[in-house]
Amino acid sequence: MNKIGIPDRHRAAFLVDFKSPLEMGYTDTAIPVGNQVLIRVSGAGICHSDVHVWEGIWYKGGSPGKLPHIQSHEISGTVAAIGDSVPERIKPGDPVLVYPWQWLEDDRYTAAGLTNVPDRPVVPGINIDGGFQEYFLVSHYRYLVDARGIEDLPALAPLSCGGLTTYRAVKKLDGKLQPDDYVAVVGLGGLGSYAVQYLRLLFPQVNIIGADIREDSIEFAEGICRMDGYINPASGDTNKAITEITRGHGFRGVIDLVGKGTLSIYSRALSKEGIYVMVGLMGTGIQESISPFFTVSMEKTITGSYVGTLSEQHEVVDLARKGLINYRKPVSSRIALENASKGLQNLEDGKALGRQVVVF
Amino acid sequence: MNKIGIPDRHRAAFLVDFKSPLEMGYTDTAIPVGNQVLIRVSGAGICHSDVHVWEGIWYKGGSPGKLPHIQSHEISGTVAAIGDSVPERIKPGDPVLVYPWQWLEDDRYTAAGLTNVPDRPVVPGINIDGGFQEYFLVSHYRYLVDARGIEDLPALAPLSCGGLTTYRAVKKLDGKLQPDDYVAVVGLGGLGSYAVQYLRLLFPQVNIIGADIREDSIEFAEGICRMDGYINPASGDTNKAITEITRGHGFRGVIDLVGKGTLSIYSRALSKEGIYVMVGLMGTGIQESISPFFTVSMEKTITGSYVGTLSEQHEVVDLARKGLINYRKPVSSRIALENASKGLQNLEDGKALGRQVVVF
Amino acid sequence: MNKIGIPDRHRAAFLVDFKSPLEMGYTDTAIPVGNQVLIRVSGAGICHSDVHVWEGIWYKGGSPGKLPHIQSHEISGTVAAIGDSVPERIKPGDPVLVYPWQWLEDDRYTAAGLTNVPDRPVVPGINIDGGFQEYFLVSHYRYLVDARGIEDLPALAPLSCGGLTTYRAVKKLDGKLQPDDYVAVVGLGGLGSYAVQYLRLLFPQVNIIGADIREDSIEFAEGICRMDGYINPASGDTNKAITEITRGHGFRGVIDLVGKGTLSIYSRALSKEGIYVMVGLMGTGIQESISPFFTVSMEKTITGSYVGTLSEQHEVVDLARKGLINYRKPVSSRIALENASKGLQNLEDGKALGRQVVVF
Amino acid sequence: MNKIGIPDRHRAAFLVDFKSPLEMGYTDTAIPVGNQVLIRVSGAGICHSDVHVWEGIWYKGGSPGKLPHIQSHEISGTVAAIGDSVPERIKPGDPVLVYPWQWLEDDRYTAAGLTNVPDRPVVPGINIDGGFQEYFLVSHYRYLVDARGIEDLPALAPLSCGGLTTYRAVKKLDGKLQPDDYVAVVGLGGLGSYAVQYLRLLFPQVNIIGADIREDSIEFAEGICRMDGYINPASGDTNKAITEITRGHGFRGVIDLVGKGTLSIYSRALSKEGIYVMVGLMGTGIQESISPFFTVSMEKTITGSYVGTLSEQHEVVDLARKGLINYRKPVSSRIALENASKGLQNLEDGKALGRQVVVF
Repeated sequence: MNKIGIPDRHRAAFLVDFKSPLEMGYTDTAIPVGNQVLIRVSGAGICHSDVHVWEGIWYKGGSPGKLPHIQSHEISGTVAAIGDSVPERIKPGDPVLVYPWQWLEDDRYTAAGLTNVPDRPVVPGINIDGGFQEYFLVSHYRYLVDARGIEDLPALAPLSCGGLTTYRAVKKLDGKLQPDDYVAVVGLGGLGSYAVQYLRLLFPQVNIIGADIREDSIEFAEGICRMDGYINPASGDTNKAITEITRGHGFRGVIDLVGKGTLSIYSRALSKEGIYVMVGLMGTGIQESISPFFTVSMEKTITGSYVGTLSEQHEVVDLARKGLINYRKPVSSRIALENASKGLQNLEDGKALGRQVVVF
Repeated sequence: MNKIGIPDRHRAAFLVDFKSPLEMGYTDTAIPVGNQVLIRVSGAGICHSDVHVWEGIWYKGGSPGKLPHIQSHEISGTVAAIGDSVPERIKPGDPVLVYPWQWLEDDRYTAAGLTNVPDRPVVPGINIDGGFQEYFLVSHYRYLVDARGIEDLPALAPLSCGGLTTYRAVKKLDGKLQPDDYVAVVGLGGLGSYAVQYLRLLFPQVNIIGADIREDSIEFAEGICRMDGYINPASGDTNKAITEITRGHGFRGVIDLVGKGTLSIYSRALSKEGIYVMVGLMGTGIQESISPFFTVSMEKTITGSYVGTLSEQHEVVDLARKGLINYRKPVSSRIALENASKGLQNLEDGKALGRQVVVF
Repeated sequence: MNKIGIPDRHRAAFLVDFKSPLEMGYTDTAIPVGNQVLIRVSGAGICHSDVHVWEGIWYKGGSPGKLPHIQSHEISGTVAAIGDSVPERIKPGDPVLVYPWQWLEDDRYTAAGLTNVPDRPVVPGINIDGGFQEYFLVSHYRYLVDARGIEDLPALAPLSCGGLTTYRAVKKLDGKLQPDDYVAVVGLGGLGSYAVQYLRLLFPQVNIIGADIREDSIEFAEGICRMDGYINPASGDTNKAITEITRGHGFRGVIDLVGKGTLSIYSRALSKEGIYVMVGLMGTGIQESISPFFTVSMEKTITGSYVGTLSEQHEVVDLARKGLINYRKPVSSRIALENASKGLQNLEDGKALGRQVVVF
Repeated sequence: MNKIGIPDRHRAAFLVDFKSPLEMGYTDTAIPVGNQVLIRVSGAGICHSDVHVWEGIWYKGGSPGKLPHIQSHEISGTVAAIGDSVPERIKPGDPVLVYPWQWLEDDRYTAAGLTNVPDRPVVPGINIDGGFQEYFLVSHYRYLVDARGIEDLPALAPLSCGGLTTYRAVKKLDGKLQPDDYVAVVGLGGLGSYAVQYLRLLFPQVNIIGADIREDSIEFAEGICRMDGYINPASGDTNKAITEITRGHGFRGVIDLVGKGTLSIYSRALSKEGIYVMVGLMGTGIQESISPFFTVSMEKTITGSYVGTLSEQHEVVDLARKGLINYRKPVSSRIALENASKGLQNLEDGKALGRQVVVF
């Protein structure tokens, strides 16, 4: 025990060799100073990016910064101790979600509220140590989002990435949709099951069409939020299915959570003034199937959306607290810290239906 | 002479065989009824689309609707006669510009002011007879824009397409640019010489970089509006040139007036939150050079912009009247009706620096 | 019967003397020509403006244009006959809602989609004859909104004014609200019972507070859409009630459907970046209670909202068709044409809870 | 000299008794720690708020926090020393402008970029000690704006308040103005001479009308940026003058920098869809002259604008650096620190034409 009544050392799962199982061990517990806050971790989500980090394919790009490394950027927990500059309103015991899209230095983007694209990003679990440990040190209290009123704190963790990224993406359709328009959500796994909820909530006037090549994914998402139609490219003529289901109108909006091979299919189906929001990072290139003629004459838009801002993080937690979205159902499994590797392996193998969260 | 003091028949240039010289002849002069207005044509511009119509490559798509056909959609002139439902404020002798992006039927898009993308478009010179004739019948007075105060009426004609399309495209950057950002105009011919003027006028705080593979085009546009830098992909390493000229920042905005082979070059150079406005219709496909990774993580946007709305048409003429843009200099040559074919040939051969206008 | 199988004359209720009961009689049935469409009226709503017209207080301002006059601008019905320029998609028998905010001449506002503020407005029932008659001649088919799929056509009528005005007003809050904000609807009669539905639908994340000085109005609106709290200035300290109910935050938005004496009460309660939408036309002046100091330092906004655009009219009918709003419950009584005067008297006496519709 | 080569004590002007001349004296020079930066002050502007602080009328409201107090919130200077957490890009000798609209704690407003309305503001010169001293300690490097490339550093100081407040106010008209609209700037002293420059720069297409009751103020502002017309309510019928000068259209935008007695005059003159931006804090109440009828039916907007955001502060300095605004001419006098009281007295007496800056 250190002087603030917290164990000097605590358990963690370490990434030591890429693609190998994480190794369990102990690490020192930091004492927060200045604006820092120490968190007792409740939930640490597993995201697709974690698989890329685990595989080592981003190592040359600086993620992770070093080995051994502690993974997971989706972190919820309770305040364990605070630094001397932290405001009084933050108290030990408070439940919080950690905003992971942090930055080393304030710049013009962060000043304007675009905290998702800072010049010098630093993300726990990706660049620095993350949430696969019992205690996690947050570098500044501003990254904490108050989670009082949230019943299931571990299940909140994925709202800092999966549930945030989809929120920003869906909001990019704001002001673009009219009653009776059709909007597609491409990819109905964990991400998709958040996206359809936000669409239903924010744009109740539109028809939501879910698309996935796996029937079990469609069923999973449908169990959380019913859609107005479904498309499975694996079972027939997709173009024809789109035409029929949209009564020839096409999609006014597309939220593409996949990226691999989907752009060429669904961007063709955009209607006049349609907007295509790309979220999936690891897709193949934008193919020649996108015609300049129709992009111009129908004024189509293709836009990228990346994670979410700190403001949006607050909004997302508020929606969960008010019961306007179901944040629990997208979590399809909870696993112990010593089984975190198994979660990574599941995701790599395409065996995870929804989000997986490591619980403590 | 008919009963309203206008010749019963008037001269026109007819497209009889695709790719053959237009044939001069006579056609009946209509008497306007209802909301119609008859115009004595002053100027009829030649646009790239006219070359496509002349070549016959859009014939299967319904443009032109029949042969023989009278070309040109960029029409300025004076009111010759009005139908009985036309408001009193419109009088014979009034100078006007004709908004060519007309529609057969009011729909939701036109009701919302998006008159550029109606469900049933009909464009003079493209679908129906256009301005290569001495008198032109406008189907509804609402398509007329008051040109009083404009000194050079023939030179105004291209503002209904070239000078309108670039205006809408440049306005798509509104609210996206900050001081010291870099914006590229790709293609510095007739269109480009309007675009750089709008950029300088609407976003004086940014740096404008002109790009073209022809030195004479760069000089032509520079003579109309000085830019802050130039890129000629024909003379060296374009990526390096972009990096140097933008001090590593890349472009916050790109106005691409070309389309052919330009997207893959300039979209890579978009900065964070950058927006790429596609105007050139006839480009090759969007190549695999566009990386989903950077489109998403830098939140880049690619958007099409098509001609302009009726509201924007009014705005453009106002800017010309107030002397805020130079509408005369982009017109590089004026030709007689009987030489209209020559203008089409020049454009097909890439010999036209700026816009060409048939004058009467 | 005339040549199109419609009676040569039909019944109507005429305003002959201001404040006197309407007089029943017959009038000629027009045969539609050009773009005109003749409607067999199903429902004709009674609005507060109708009371002002009936009282004659707008007569000097040109409303009505002459006596005798046929009142009502909220008109639904079925197509009886069409002029020769009306598109084929519009057929006799089609159910329609008539957009009443019409204009004599296209201008810049209508071109931009701001059809609610044309330079030369002309409104059936206000300036020209309206819906208190069996057949009504619409001057242009563009004012018709397709009502197929609507079960209760008479109850749709008030969506062209009461249900449209509130929609535009609520949409003025778009992009301004965050989860857990408080929004007040001031005035819970017929208008209010639409407004709370739109708020709940478009901004599910906020808390809606209803305000009225009549308990029966509060109950009426609550029966249609439950709110998160209620304020009755007639029963206690309003400022204190607002502070308590908003937990000290104040209102981020206010939809003021009354105007008389309400602005001074509720504008004080605006939070930082709050927006106050004025809808009630006949209020007393804006009182000195609005402090420049707080308006500036808290960046408050006060804005007027007037009826709605043609685009918004289409949207509203779509929402009703999809069952996203209840358009039937706000109609509190249906009366026969010969009792229309009674409806006007009820409204003047403050005895109408919701909207009243004359049915045929 | 302390250990970082800076004098242990430095000169300052102290407010000891309200309305009495400031007293010259010495104060300790702080050594910056953490994120703090010590500035060698070059310019310290005098603003109307400083008069209110000096008069003591805001003392009950907490401004200043204590006596004696050091005034001035418009501060430019060079970096003298930096704390250990300040990024390397900030170096001693760097010229900077200090953003004065600081906050004690990050909150939702600051996270969203609305740094001008934080929940817990703290402003140098108002709440805490300010710039009437040789060295000034900035609490966090994020409040510094790089001023490299600025030739006249003392003249830059008022850009942090006078030149920032007017920028945000003018930007509130963005997207609302069309060519040939009329915009009024009410109040042509120091603030007005910035506002007209921003209007000319950002909205070259509109007509700018200056309004003031003092002829010397009109001349002062005209000497910096010519306007398209002038109104002096002191010399004749203002309503008539507005009608003539705007050709009956009225103002699409008004920037009211005064507040006292101006709202009732100029808000009447708003056109349809017009927007009135209130900047002057100390005006009398909003009078009954504002008619709900016209506010609603013409969809007028009245909105407050308060200082500016940190992003806007960066933008303003960029505009000055690029030479797009003249930041020197609005400074009408430079005075020594020991004469600062005289500047306050001048402003109270209405004798200052432009901005006054204390120089060192």
